[in-house]
Parts: sequence; structure tokens; C-alpha cells
Amino acid sequence: MDDAVAARFAEIVGEHDLLTGDRIPEDYARDESLTCEPSKPAAVAKPATAEEVAALLRMAAEHGVPVTARGTGSGLSGAARPRPDGLLISFERMNSVLEIDVDNQVAVVQPGVTLAELDRSTAAAGLAYTVYPGELSASVGGTVGTNAGGMRAVKYGVTRNNVLGLQAVLPTGEIIRTGGKTSKISSGYDLTQLIIGSEGTLALATEVIVKLYPRLAHTSTLLAPFGDLDKVMKAVPKILASGLTPDILEYIDNLTMAAIVYTEQLSLGVPDEIRDATQAYLVVGLQNRDSDRLDGDVERAGELLADLGAADVYVLDGGSARKLIEARERAFWTAKAAGADDVIDVVVPRSEMPGFLATVREIATAAEAGAIGCGHAGDGNVHLGIFCKDPQRRHELLHDIFAAGMAAGGAISGEHGIGEAKKDHFLALEDPAKIALLRRIKQAFDPRNILNPGTLFD
Amino acid sequence: MDDAVAARFAEIVGEHDLLTGDRIPEDYARDESLTCEPSKPAAVAKPATAEEVAALLRMAAEHGVPVTARGTGSGLSGAARPRPDGLLISFERMNSVLEIDVDNQVAVVQPGVTLAELDRSTAAAGLAYTVYPGELSASVGGTVGTNAGGMRAVKYGVTRNNVLGLQAVLPTGEIIRTGGKTSKISSGYDLTQLIIGSEGTLALATEVIVKLYPRLAHTSTLLAPFGDLDKVMKAVPKILASGLTPDILEYIDNLTMAAIVYTEQLSLGVPDEIRDATQAYLVVGLQNRDSDRLDGDVERAGELLADLGAADVYVLDGGSARKLIEARERAFWTAKAAGADDVIDVVVPRSEMPGFLATVREIATAAEAGAIGCGHAGDGNVHLGIFCKDPQRRHELLHDIFAAGMAAGGAISGEHGIGEAKKDHFLALEDPAKIALLRRIKQAFDPRNILNPGTLFD
Repeated sequence: MDDAVAARFAEIVGEHDLLTGDRIPEDYARDESLTCEPSKPAAVAKPATAEEVAALLRMAAEHGVPVTARGTGSGLSGAARPRPDGLLISFERMNSVLEIDVDNQVAVVQPGVTLAELDRSTAAAGLAYTVYPGELSASVGGTVGTNAGGMRAVKYGVTRNNVLGLQAVLPTGEIIRTGGKTSKISSGYDLTQLIIGSEGTLALATEVIVKLYPRLAHTSTLLAPFGDLDKVMKAVPKILASGLTPDILEYIDNLTMAAIVYTEQLSLGVPDEIRDATQAYLVVGLQNRDSDRLDGDVERAGELLADLGAADVYVLDGGSARKLIEARERAFWTAKAAGADDVIDVVVPRSEMPGFLATVREIATAAEAGAIGCGHAGDGNVHLGIFCKDPQRRHELLHDIFAAGMAAGGAISGEHGIGEAKKDHFLALEDPAKIALLRRIKQAFDPRNILNPGTLFD
Repeated sequence: MDDAVAARFAEIVGEHDLLTGDRIPEDYARDESLTCEPSKPAAVAKPATAEEVAALLRMAAEHGVPVTARGTGSGLSGAARPRPDGLLISFERMNSVLEIDVDNQVAVVQPGVTLAELDRSTAAAGLAYTVYPGELSASVGGTVGTNAGGMRAVKYGVTRNNVLGLQAVLPTGEIIRTGGKTSKISSGYDLTQLIIGSEGTLALATEVIVKLYPRLAHTSTLLAPFGDLDKVMKAVPKILASGLTPDILEYIDNLTMAAIVYTEQLSLGVPDEIRDATQAYLVVGLQNRDSDRLDGDVERAGELLADLGAADVYVLDGGSARKLIEARERAFWTAKAAGADDVIDVVVPRSEMPGFLATVREIATAAEAGAIGCGHAGDGNVHLGIFCKDPQRRHELLHDIFAAGMAAGGAISGEHGIGEAKKDHFLALEDPAKIALLRRIKQAFDPRNILNPGTLFD
């Protein structure tokens, strides 16, 4: 990017909010992907309005400058890594909760709002935005880009199910509105859903309308150790069929639990002899607006877990429960601290989890690699820390694991996205007819190919 | 279409299942739209497999033959009305429930399966497909095309929220699979969601994976007459904020209720003096897996409705409740029988319903027309029978009503779709930048423009 172009960008957002050269902090060169090398952009713009975003995109299109959007950089797929010759648009100044609309149970927020901030704002109204990916420092815009999920998705769905509308800027520079404060629309193609999960390649969200739920007052967390991972997996459909509607249904394998307990200095009250005979744990969260009903559900869930083969069932006290959930949310950091070389999140139909995990164990053993983890058992979303130093062997290992997941009727990623990190596997494994169609859709939005080139596609 | 082309279509599906000329029944010329004139196609094909559908589309593309898909023809927007020179693909032979998968709580069905059949199949497994538009003779494929909603959407969402994956044939002839038996995927653009609600203009679904829920054993229905329509509308957000999660939350204005009671010979137990002072009714359906909890919810809902201004609250007995719900589901037929000239289903944010309905009354009065109805109060989806004989005046009236709905943050249709019937209004009122983008997306799927030309776009 030459200086003249940077100067034009500076005219749009102001000198103060257009960074070049040494003014660009290292942090803007990367997201949290473990495998994408950092890459500083030529310039960083911090727009304050949708109109400024539109002007930036028009200018970028005119000069053929690639544009990457950034929320808080907590993504795991490299979709927020900028191009060295490109413009990074950081949404950090567009960070207002514009409205908490109690009657319609929605919030209208700017993309730079973090989930933690949104949680605080909604709590004041007795409501909640129920998408809780592990990282609450994530921005709403970022979660729209990746279609983020998290633990509560088993009850409330993922970002896709909780975003009702957008204001978005097209790479051709127009500002459009999609959807609205309504949960149903049948009036033309659903652009909201198309933009969600598109990883910054189709349009940039400048306002997001999210669905809120009443914040339920009473919660309880059960921990059930199982001697056998298969039994955990087979218990999951039964729990969901029971009608108990847990808001958390997670499995944690014994190695991951050991790492969590050690790192977080947790005390869960599991006796040594049970812990030593445990292959995996199931964590079941229950919520209710009524404490008596919650008690009834806890009792029923305890009986059900015992019937399904749990060695015991522990109702965690509030403090331990919170710590365990938070530690589970930080599982990525635990894996990273343990030296994981990659972190993946294949999704399969939940009934396929036992078979898929057995296949993963075989593939990893054959490759002399490690693949341990935890995951959203109710969703079939398997999070694995991959331990395999050699890049070529790791590439083959991942290829085989992704292929196994897809063969089981699943997909490469349940919630992290493809980004740059998994792009090669995505393009190699996905149906070429679908890839060709996705490319034509990309072209329909972005004829100059300025938005996040290199993400999803080559 | 010349005879040679028809002969090629016959080679694909067999002579018996390719109809031309007098062999085409009148019914294939139309759907249930009140305003689209019937139009017989040049040929009707009844494929048995996705491969046959693909072969038909390739042949149609080669010869520039427009193609319209048809389920059971129960649509209300004219999106299944064929072109006189075109091919109608009827999915009546692709009518198998392929799988009820209890562990994953999904069903895999062919597009020609009706909702009534799916309801029977899932009931046997203790599960339910929770999308119940009024017309259970609708096909699953048709509901995918329109993103059908219905009364239970207030709790369970619309078709969009309950379809997890598709097998679909592109107008370029490829058969693709989208999504799967999982509720979360972040691996490329969401083609499932893009095809849902596209009214047969982007791709034809040949298999549909739908989400199922446990079928709840205990249900109760409350009827609350209100002296004032505004009070009904203002009660709705309070009921939803209470956490009672009704599966039905409908309003019925007094004229529509009178027509329903008369047509269906219903006896609801409302005393004359209350009925005469009623402007609208709220119908609240509650479900629970536990009968004691249901009783508690009914009591709580009754108190809440009384607090919110209901003149009284009636818990309907099972037979009356079922009849009232069925009659409400047939409200379209009641409106048609009463001589309605059109039926529309504008959606607005639910908090905007009082203002929107007041505006509709003003517009209708000024036009010396009638606009009466009922609707999905929890969803802001207002169903109105329009009584106005003169086509030009009716067109202006609808334009003004749709414009008012959009100005209130809503859309022309919540669940019926745009089709041919509302296309002129859609194109006149929607943001031209969005229309241009939708056209480019259409082009990305269907470069030869063979799928349902004239629906959504000119």
C-alpha cells in the first residue's frame, strides 16, 4: 500500500485512528490460532461509524487493497490475520450496546462490544445473551464471523440461532440492513444467515441484533465420572431425550481433567479410587426459574446418570461449579500451556462420537501423536488438543481426522471456523461442486475480492 | 416447449410420470394464493430420485425451460404456479420418511412427505417435528421453500430453525449435501439457510434433515378475552418475559372469532356479556412433560392474564381446545369463505403490533376496505384478510400496509413468502442495494435463470 492510499484511509477515520508502520502494535498481526504465523498489515483503521466502514471499503476496492476485519483477536482459525499489503479494520471503537429492548427481548449492539460487556448490560434487565463461547473477551462481531458456539449451545443454539438481524457493509460499499427485531421473516434470501459464519469474507457487520432470553435464577452443576468414554457418549442422547434440557452437557477426558484440576487447583471432591478408575467425566448444567423445579430436575438427572453407568454423581457447590465451568472454558489455554501444537473442533452427529473418538485414537496412535480433549457432548462438537511437532505429519494427521469426521456425517469445524488455518483441508476434503458454488457466492458479494482473501479460499 | 424436449423429460422419469396437454390436472396450475391466476405448465414431471431431478434440471438448462417445483400446492404466495412454457416438477413420488434417528433427534425425509405424515411417523418414537403451519397437508419441501412458520414458532422457531441439512439439486445439475445431523457447523457459508426460504429459485431440496423434540405429554389451552386489542398486544411481551414459554400465543380479533365460532360451530363457554365487550382474544397454549408442573404453569398464566387486563380466563377442555386450535389453523379458509380478496402476513417486532394494527385500521378505513384477522402474537406475525374488490385500490392498500410494516422494522411476509403474489411490492419497497445483491446470489446459483423465474424477481 503506498503512502497516498494510507493518507486517503486516514482522511476517512482521522489521523489518530489510522495506524501505519511502527504505530501498529504486534497484537494486530495475529489471532489466537496456534498455527498461523503473525503478519502485520500495512495499515490499521479504527472506524467509528458504518459510514466510515463503507468509505474504507470503497477506497480499498478502488485501490485493490485486501481488507481484514478484527474484533478482539480471540479467533482460533486465523481468519483475523491481516495481509501484509492490506488494511486491518479494527472494530474496537464501535463498542456500544445501542439498545436493550425488553419488550422484544433483543439487544442491538455494535460489533466491537465484547460478550462480557453484553452479559453485564443484559443482566441489568434480567435477560441474557445465551451464546457463551469459552472466551468472553470475544467481540460480538467476531462471533458473527465465526458462528461461535460454546457450552450453552446444547440448549440455546449457536450464534446463528441467536442473531436476528444485521446492519452490514458490503465490499461494494453499500450499507444494508438484514432481518430485524423479529424471529421470522420470509421475504427474500436470508442475508443475515449467509453473513454469519462467513469469516469476514462477504460483508462486515456494523450492527447486530441479538435475541435475549430471561435470565434464569437457579442453576446447578452435576459432575459424573465414568469408567468408560463410550458410556459417556452413549449417555448423552438419553439425557437429551429425557426432556431435562440441560444448558451444559460437556465431556472432559481424564487427561484434560487432570490438567484442568492441576492448573486451576480445583478440588472437586472425587475420591482417589474413583478418579483413578475414570476415563472421562460428564458435566451437566441445569437451570430453572423455580428452585423447587430445579431440585426435582437435579434429582432426576442424578438417577438417570447413575442408571447410565456413572461411577457416582456429584452436585458441585456454587464455587466449585463456577471454577470448573470457567476452567473448561479455558480448555484452549490449558491445551496451549500443555504444549499442544494445534487445537481443532470437529463436529459429528452426537451418536457418532464414540466411533469417531475411537477412530481418532487409532489415527493418533498410528501417527505417534496425541489427541486429547473435551467437548460439547450434546452437540457432537469434539475439541481436541493435537500433540505432534512435525508439521508434515501433523498435516496428514489432521487430514485423516477431518476426513473421519466428515465421513461420519460431520464437518471440519463446529464453531471455530475454517479461516486460514484449516483452509487447505477444507478445500481438499469438501465437495468441489460446493466449493465452486461458495466461490460464486463470494463473487456475488465481493467482485473485487477485497474481503479477507486467503480465508476459506486460496 | 416442443415435443422433442418433452420426450427427453419423459426418458428421464418414464412416460407414466411425465404429463403433457390434457393429462395435466387443473390442480397443477395453481397454489392457494388468492390472487395469482392459474397457469398450466407445458409438462409435469414426477421424479423418483435426486438423480432424476438433476437430469431434469440439466435438460431444462440445456433447452432454456423454466422449472417450478411443487409439493402439495398449499402455498399462499404463488411460488408454485408454473410458467405456461415451463416444466413443473412435482415431488409427490418422493414422499418417504427415510429415517427417524432417535439418538440424534432428527428425521431424514424426502420433500414430498406431508407434515401430517411426518407427525405420525415421529409420534411413534415419542418425538415431534415442531413446525406446524396451519396446513398439515403441506409438504416438507414446500415448507423449506417458504420458511414456513405457524403457531408453535413462538416456542420452537420456524422452518429455518428446525432444518439442519439438505440434499439439494442445483440448477446447474449437481447434487450437493449441506449441513447434517448436527446443530452447529462453522465450515463455509451456510447453504442450508440460504436455500430455506428461497421459494424454489436457488435449488431444489431432495432430502431434508429436520430436528425433532421430545413430544410433551401434557398440554393445556387458555382463552382470554380482552376489551381492548391494545391490551392484548401489550400483554404479549409480559407473558414471554415471564419464562412460561408458551408453545402457542395467538390473538384473534372479535370478527375473526365470530366467523370461526360460526363456521366451526364452536362452544367456548364465553358468556354473552363478556363476548359482546370483547375486542380480541388471546389464546395461550402450554405444554409440559410433567402434569403437576403444567398445572402450576396454568395457574400462573391465569393470574398473569388477569393482571394484564383479561376480562376473564377460560381453561378450555381438551375437545374445545383442539377444535379452536384447528379452527385457528384454518383461519385462511375462514377468510376465503368470508370473501376475502387477499390474505397477507406482515411481520413486525412484537412491541410494534399495537401501533401497526392502529395504522392498518386507519389505512383500511381511508380506503373503505376491510382488514381483519388474527396472528402469531408472540412473533409479531399479523395475518389479515383483506376485503377490497377493486384491484387497483387493493394494490395501493397493500402497498401502504406493507410500507407501514417495513417502517415499523418488519417485513412483507413472516411465513407465507413473496412468490409472485407480493413480488411487485417487494421490489418496490425493498432497498435496491439488497435486491441487486439477491439477484447476484440468484445468478451465482442459477446462471441460466431456469428456477422459478418470475418468483421474487421479475
